[in-house]
Amino acid sequence: MQITLCDFLGRDNFRFSPYVWRTKLALAHKKLDYEVVGTTFLDKSALEGWTGYRLAPVLKHGDTVVCDSWEIANYLERTWPAESPLFPDRGSRALASFLNAWVPAALYPVLLPLITRDVLDHVHPDDREHYRRTREARLGCSLEEAQAGRDEDVVGFRDALEPFRQVLLEQAYLSGDRPAYADFILFALFQWARNTSRFKLLTTDDPVHDWRRRMAEDYREVVSTSDGYPY
Amino acid sequence: MQITLCDFLGRDNFRFSPYVWRTKLALAHKKLDYEVVGTTFLDKSALEGWTGYRLAPVLKHGDTVVCDSWEIANYLERTWPAESPLFPDRGSRALASFLNAWVPAALYPVLLPLITRDVLDHVHPDDREHYRRTREARLGCSLEEAQAGRDEDVVGFRDALEPFRQVLLEQAYLSGDRPAYADFILFALFQWARNTSRFKLLTTDDPVHDWRRRMAEDYREVVSTSDGYPY
Repeated sequence: MQITLCDFLGRDNFRFSPYVWRTKLALAHKKLDYEVVGTTFLDKSALEGWTGYRLAPVLKHGDTVVCDSWEIANYLERTWPAESPLFPDRGSRALASFLNAWVPAALYPVLLPLITRDVLDHVHPDDREHYRRTREARLGCSLEEAQAGRDEDVVGFRDALEPFRQVLLEQAYLSGDRPAYADFILFALFQWARNTSRFKLLTTDDPVHDWRRRMAEDYREVVSTSDGYPY
Repeated sequence: MQITLCDFLGRDNFRFSPYVWRTKLALAHKKLDYEVVGTTFLDKSALEGWTGYRLAPVLKHGDTVVCDSWEIANYLERTWPAESPLFPDRGSRALASFLNAWVPAALYPVLLPLITRDVLDHVHPDDREHYRRTREARLGCSLEEAQAGRDEDVVGFRDALEPFRQVLLEQAYLSGDRPAYADFILFALFQWARNTSRFKLLTTDDPVHDWRRRMAEDYREVVSTSDGYPY
C-alpha cells in the first residue's frame, strides 16, 4: 500500500518543518518508500479527501490517515515492527516520550528567536505574511528584534543542550550504539534550523556538533532531499 | 566487604539530601546492606580518613571511596552487575544520564523556593545558620520571602513535570515495567521535599502522584528509615 506524507512547502527546495523531519527520518530509518504532497500554511487543498487531517505531518497509508509526528512514529512501529526499531528498548521509548514533550516546551522557545527572521525568507512566498503575523504575535516583538541579540542569546540555547552532552559522553547516540527516534526528535530541530538559517548554533568542539554531523551522514539520503546550509 | 554510606544528619530522624536518597534507593534496589555515618554541613569529622571525599553522598566499599551519586550508581552497577540492574537497557541509561543533568538544572531551582523555609526546620540544629545564609545568598531573598507565594508558584513546578506525565501514560515507571535508576532520580527529589515539608506538591489526580505513591510502596523499607510527612 502506498504511503503518502504531507509536508510544508518552503521557498525553492527548503523543507523546514521539524515535525515533518521527525517523520521523514523515521521513514528513512525503516527504509519505507513514500510520496510527498506539499501544502503551504494557507493552502491545504492538496489534502482534500484526507479525513481528519490537522497540521503536518500527516501520513496516509492506504485509507488510514495518521496525524501528529508521535502518533505516526507509533503507527510505523506497530505496522512495521520487523524493520529497524524506532524504539529499540523500553528505556529509549521512555526517553523519546520525554523528549517529545520536553523539546517543544524547552528548546523551541529558545531556538525560535535565534532564527525566526531567517525562517521568513525560507517559507513559501505565499506564507510570508501569515508567518510574520503569527510569529510576531507569539514573540511579542518583530522578527528582526527577536533575532537581533542572537550572538549572545545563543549561549542560552547551548546551555539548554547540556543534558544531551552528558548522554553523548557515554554513548554514540541518544538511543544507544545506533540512532533511533529519540535522536530524530533532536536532529529534526537542527534540520529546521539548517533549512532556514546560516546561523551557527553550535561550536565545533561541542559533542552535540559531532553527533549532528554523524546523524547527517547516517541519514544523508533523506537529508539531501532538501536544500539546507552547511553546518 | 563492608559498605558505608555518608549521609547528612537532619533534625531528629529527618534525612533530606536528594542525592543521598538516590544512592539509598540504588542500594535497596540491589539489596545491598550498608552502614550509615552522619555528618552535618559544618562537621565532617565522621569522614576522617576517607580519602578524597567531597559532598555527600560518599560511599566506602572496603578501601574504595566513591563520591557523587552518579559515580556511585555506576560503581554499584559495575561491581554488582548480577543484582537488579539500575540501568536495565541502553535507553534507560540514556534517560537516567539525561535526568542526572536536567533535574538539578531545571527542577531544583523551581522546587527549592517552595519548601526552603520548611527545610530550615529540618536540617541539623548546628546547620541552621549556615543553611539560611547560603540559601538566601542563592535565592537572593529571605527564605520566608521565597516561600511566601508558593500556592501560586507550585503551578510552575507541576508544569515542569509534564514530560514525566507523558512517559507515565505509556508505562508504569520511567524505566519500564519496573522502577530503576531513572525513577530514583525523580523520586529522590520528592523524598527531599517529603522529609522537610508538609506542602502538597502534587494534586491527587496527577499520574506523577500515583507513580510516587507506588514508588514509596515498592521501596517502603528504605523509605521508612527516615521520618517524613504523608504525601
